Amino acid sequence: MPSLGRLVLLVSPKGKRYLRPLVPGKTLHTNDGILQMSDVARAGFGHVAHTHLGRPYQVIKPTLYDLIKGIKRQTQILYPKEIGYVLLKLGLGPGASVIEAGSGSGSLTLALSFMLGETGKVYTYERRPEFFELCAKNLERAGLGHNVERFNADIKDGFLQQGVDSLFLDVRNPWEYLDQVVKAVAPGAPLGFLLPTVNQVSELLAGLEAGPFADMEVLEILLRRYKPVPERLRPEDRMVAHTGFLIFARQRD
Amino acid sequence: MPSLGRLVLLVSPKGKRYLRPLVPGKTLHTNDGILQMSDVARAGFGHVAHTHLGRPYQVIKPTLYDLIKGIKRQTQILYPKEIGYVLLKLGLGPGASVIEAGSGSGSLTLALSFMLGETGKVYTYERRPEFFELCAKNLERAGLGHNVERFNADIKDGFLQQGVDSLFLDVRNPWEYLDQVVKAVAPGAPLGFLLPTVNQVSELLAGLEAGPFADMEVLEILLRRYKPVPERLRPEDRMVAHTGFLIFARQRD
Amino acid sequence: MPSLGRLVLLVSPKGKRYLRPLVPGKTLHTNDGILQMSDVARAGFGHVAHTHLGRPYQVIKPTLYDLIKGIKRQTQILYPKEIGYVLLKLGLGPGASVIEAGSGSGSLTLALSFMLGETGKVYTYERRPEFFELCAKNLERAGLGHNVERFNADIKDGFLQQGVDSLFLDVRNPWEYLDQVVKAVAPGAPLGFLLPTVNQVSELLAGLEAGPFADMEVLEILLRRYKPVPERLRPEDRMVAHTGFLIFARQRD
Amino acid sequence: MPSLGRLVLLVSPKGKRYLRPLVPGKTLHTNDGILQMSDVARAGFGHVAHTHLGRPYQVIKPTLYDLIKGIKRQTQILYPKEIGYVLLKLGLGPGASVIEAGSGSGSLTLALSFMLGETGKVYTYERRPEFFELCAKNLERAGLGHNVERFNADIKDGFLQQGVDSLFLDVRNPWEYLDQVVKAVAPGAPLGFLLPTVNQVSELLAGLEAGPFADMEVLEILLRRYKPVPERLRPEDRMVAHTGFLIFARQRD
Repeated sequence: MPSLGRLVLLVSPKGKRYLRPLVPGKTLHTNDGILQMSDVARAGFGHVAHTHLGRPYQVIKPTLYDLIKGIKRQTQILYPKEIGYVLLKLGLGPGASVIEAGSGSGSLTLALSFMLGETGKVYTYERRPEFFELCAKNLERAGLGHNVERFNADIKDGFLQQGVDSLFLDVRNPWEYLDQVVKAVAPGAPLGFLLPTVNQVSELLAGLEAGPFADMEVLEILLRRYKPVPERLRPEDRMVAHTGFLIFARQRD
Repeated sequence: MPSLGRLVLLVSPKGKRYLRPLVPGKTLHTNDGILQMSDVARAGFGHVAHTHLGRPYQVIKPTLYDLIKGIKRQTQILYPKEIGYVLLKLGLGPGASVIEAGSGSGSLTLALSFMLGETGKVYTYERRPEFFELCAKNLERAGLGHNVERFNADIKDGFLQQGVDSLFLDVRNPWEYLDQVVKAVAPGAPLGFLLPTVNQVSELLAGLEAGPFADMEVLEILLRRYKPVPERLRPEDRMVAHTGFLIFARQRD
Repeated sequence: MPSLGRLVLLVSPKGKRYLRPLVPGKTLHTNDGILQMSDVARAGFGHVAHTHLGRPYQVIKPTLYDLIKGIKRQTQILYPKEIGYVLLKLGLGPGASVIEAGSGSGSLTLALSFMLGETGKVYTYERRPEFFELCAKNLERAGLGHNVERFNADIKDGFLQQGVDSLFLDVRNPWEYLDQVVKAVAPGAPLGFLLPTVNQVSELLAGLEAGPFADMEVLEILLRRYKPVPERLRPEDRMVAHTGFLIFARQRD
Repeated sequence: MPSLGRLVLLVSPKGKRYLRPLVPGKTLHTNDGILQMSDVARAGFGHVAHTHLGRPYQVIKPTLYDLIKGIKRQTQILYPKEIGYVLLKLGLGPGASVIEAGSGSGSLTLALSFMLGETGKVYTYERRPEFFELCAKNLERAGLGHNVERFNADIKDGFLQQGVDSLFLDVRNPWEYLDQVVKAVAPGAPLGFLLPTVNQVSELLAGLEAGPFADMEVLEILLRRYKPVPERLRPEDRMVAHTGFLIFARQRD
């Protein structure tokens, strides 16, 4: 049975998706009729619950992908295509520690909280109060955040941590904080950055070259979907052409 | 200090990379002279060890990305750009269970072992003895595999597990094993597939449509690198244009 | 002075674009006020005409690109990114002859008519009367078509020409017409095809392999735009991911 | 019969391609034996000539694409995927006039000469004597250049023409020549530029914004090939990721 209070993904007969907390007594009003959350809990993951009009809704355990897609966003967010790659490049997994700034809507924070597990540690910094709150809300809604420490602070004042395994910056002018970065991470730590414009990428690279950093990499990740029709298989007509550039480096002696 | 026996990444002054086990008494012969592994251990991650000619080598703690790149391969392998996305789509993280077939060189196995942690479980199947051994060797070399059970078996005979959280197939003809898949996973489990040709994608989609599956998706992930020169920033001249198509679906009622 | 009756491109202060025939006495009603076509003619290409509210409109000689973008379309059309490449691959230029089917909305027909000049010859076939008319209308509107012969006919009955330099098919099932193709073109002629799905590409390739054809090529062309802001240069957020696959071959002995 | 002195494309049984002038009495030494050019002339386009060992070589009339691919190059060249698009964007076809700088190896010059026909006019500028010669050689070899005027001159001294229809710059620092550009082209003329780095693109855009220019566009064109095997259709493993960025604008009042 799904755990109470956690998010459940409900898929309508026509494929409409609802990501909702599983609270008994609550209802979901849909175009196919009313769905009782107690019926959803009884059905369980992988099974079907019916609306009062008898329409079948699939009850699905959301994956990390679903949680990220379902986030309440007020900012540009990192997408799964970038997040998955960042995790591998920064060596992030169970037990690791990482600093992130800014938290934004919390899409990366959520992924880090999920992937670093009970023994990992996420330190996330956000200057603006409204995003500081939004990130907290998105973590709580997803049943995550147990291993996350949040700071409503400007990173120009530095990070409170030292010797952290890794660090990721999604801020407008990361080159201004490289001194703070060096003080916060373990020697040789892998670092990541997200930036939307090529001008920012150039400026960051110049900053990294001037400091104790090595192994600079710049890349972008493109995802192209196909219409999943076996006898008429073809790419979708349009795609996302740009989320941002990913930049990686390592702190060095 | 780096843990003994584990892999360490050694980077030469010119950027040449060596991924080697850290065994005291051992040496690394390079074009820059001989490097003593005991000196490497003494230097520690993020610092520098010198060859007998006095050349500095960076001592780096390899990330999951470095481990995958350093794998001994005899097969086409999944790359970090695909692996990261697969992890998120399949909801894989600490404590999850997953079936994988075939093991191949073990690049995905290695990533799964790393990401699922102490409480997770990876069941990997490989029919061919030489790859069965290669995967084991690559896991051991990386200091991983503690949460992996390996099977030298043909999946046409079915999987030994039931109720597994998720499953990934990287085999030539996955549509022939969909009955076995259904028996092995939990209701509603997310499923993933990698296939190189569009003809195979069509055939798999037809198989999925005919069975108890939903939410089919087909996509590919492209990674484009830039030359990281701040004042002459430009994409690299060439790129990998194709690893394979990723197909996702869910088991359903 | 622009030639009368020909299309002129009028660009508003905010960048809105109007492709209109230059007919004296006619007017263009815009959000910026009324523009007199006689004022447009007097201004001339590269200069500015003013609406009755005094707003400046740029008077521009449309390029082939502008003409194609301005076509009245009822079908999926070939885009400039594909058309330019097709011209080079098929050796099309002044004086060449080419067969095209179907005409569709006439975007390729228009480009061919422009590029093949006074001494070239375009034979275009279209089965459906409504597109046969639409293509004619689009040619006439652009002041082109002088070197075009149009046929309202089904190509399963064959082409009326022989020894034509080149041929391009944009039809649903081109593999059914390969016999007709062979009879219409010069020995060794380069051939082109546009198809939206991978299944069609496979079927066409099988047909080409079975016949007197060589040098098969399959490719797709992607165009990625950037926001042209010097200090914040970045790719546009979204892009066209698929128009169609281009297939090329040569008739051979 | 192919015209004498002109290039002919000879394709070996294994697909090896030779682009050679058709000079009677000359021979081509291949791994399949010796091919007499007189036999090639006798066979004619679209037919087969045999080596002295009896191996069949296809005799093919090269298209513009083949000519560009066969160019002797000492510089980075424009590729067909870019050239085709440039032609359409700049409104180039029979009878048009265009200025190009620098000539480089002459790949664009060759395409322009082909496409602008008897009544068109290409003015190409090249500062460096070795490329000035190379461009001439490549034009002559292809049997083109009749409508080309070449200038071994530095464009900082300005262009000798006025009122030209269009202009394309493939030079390192095009923003330094915008004054010269304005003097050479007709009012409202479409302009094109090729640049390899994003820093150059930014600098050019700033220059265009400061001058009498409008309608700036920045884009890149990617071409992805597939292995043309009907039952195992898939993209090629690697592709060209970057030739250069194309920038377009119009001179305006």
